[in-house]
Amino acid sequence: MATMPAPETPTAAVLIIGNEILSGRTQDSNLNMIAKKLGAIGVRLCEARVVPDVENDIVAAVNDLRARYTYVFTTGGIGPTHDDITAASVAKAFGVRLAEHPDAAARLLAYYTKDNLNEARRRMAQAPEGAALIDNPISAAPGFRIENVHVLAGVPDIAAAMMDTIAATLKHGPAIHSIAVSGAVAESRLADDLRILAARWPQLDIGSYPWFRQGHYGTALVVRGTDQAAVAAAAEAVSALIEKYGATPARE
Amino acid sequence: MATMPAPETPTAAVLIIGNEILSGRTQDSNLNMIAKKLGAIGVRLCEARVVPDVENDIVAAVNDLRARYTYVFTTGGIGPTHDDITAASVAKAFGVRLAEHPDAAARLLAYYTKDNLNEARRRMAQAPEGAALIDNPISAAPGFRIENVHVLAGVPDIAAAMMDTIAATLKHGPAIHSIAVSGAVAESRLADDLRILAARWPQLDIGSYPWFRQGHYGTALVVRGTDQAAVAAAAEAVSALIEKYGATPARE
Repeated sequence: MATMPAPETPTAAVLIIGNEILSGRTQDSNLNMIAKKLGAIGVRLCEARVVPDVENDIVAAVNDLRARYTYVFTTGGIGPTHDDITAASVAKAFGVRLAEHPDAAARLLAYYTKDNLNEARRRMAQAPEGAALIDNPISAAPGFRIENVHVLAGVPDIAAAMMDTIAATLKHGPAIHSIAVSGAVAESRLADDLRILAARWPQLDIGSYPWFRQGHYGTALVVRGTDQAAVAAAAEAVSALIEKYGATPARE
Repeated sequence: MATMPAPETPTAAVLIIGNEILSGRTQDSNLNMIAKKLGAIGVRLCEARVVPDVENDIVAAVNDLRARYTYVFTTGGIGPTHDDITAASVAKAFGVRLAEHPDAAARLLAYYTKDNLNEARRRMAQAPEGAALIDNPISAAPGFRIENVHVLAGVPDIAAAMMDTIAATLKHGPAIHSIAVSGAVAESRLADDLRILAARWPQLDIGSYPWFRQGHYGTALVVRGTDQAAVAAAAEAVSALIEKYGATPARE
């Protein structure tokens, strides 16, 4: 069972916006990318949601999540087409006007040139009033932040670049240390001992993940927490447990 | 913008349970798998959530989602270890006792044999009172259904097998037809015309997805809906739009 974050650990939620994820057309990869980047700076990702390109659904999710977590990160729906309604929906969630952001318009003009800045491209300069832009080093059209909500692109390379841009602006929590130890033992053999072991370190999160590879099976045990000495000690105990059942523990 | 499902279309939510998804250790693939299988039988997936292995979070999500959708599908947290708390949490959400299911216990006994059925493995026979089992053809430990909530394993092969088992028991909606047309045109060039085109078929969901491949870029336009003739007509119009901008439309 997960330990609760320490009071000083900032928390976060990810909101993935897009019919293509819910229809199965697209395999999302942004959640995993954001999860790793947040873990590296000590921000605890507590929840993720996927909603369709429907204004009411986006508004409800943004308002629910922004009230509960230090940060919200949305992906998707900020492009030039009719199904890109994230900016308008976020403005509605905050009860502010959607307006053209002068700096965003200038960036798009520089990127597309005046002759090619059609109405659709110009729409990408719209943001909720009061929003601050998030740089897009790949294709100019920026994301934005309003209060604790960061609105990112859905294209994975652009979303990752935007996360790198804003990471320095986020509160960093205590680093989360993680050690994974794997062995060729069924998790159901280890489980009774592991329950006792986990109870010795209530401040840590000890996860057990069965694996099947090329006809073999085993278990990866992952020890996570902000207390580095405790993580190391628990990882040693986990390794000893794998040895007890006749397998060779391997750090992953 | 997505059209609302027709009244006869069953709806669904997916609830992914597991710290490993939120820590970034594991890339989820079950959402995409379930989305595709539901689409094939005309069940509309309307929302997905990812929550950690925390009882209160699981209970709250199960109760919120089961009240709003025809079906809920959960993945993860039904193994033998201390962090597998899904069955207990779902029992709590429904306000019923968690108890050993006799048929599940019999299946585990047959699979593991009496000498190897340790306490941890036996825990996998626990289910909320009143639940019906979902077959696990791979490793015996079953999932279960209670009212409209289907509780599946997290291991992708097992989750997929369980979905195949229960698909026949679900209400099927009208088949959702989908045609994707792709062309080497920036979506921001097409977007103004596409907005007008999409307004002609309000009963369809027309999505626009930019792509970047090996230094080239383009757009995939996806037409989806239950009205097959309208889907075909809109796909023709989309193809013509791609040609208008000098590219060759290709069905994907």
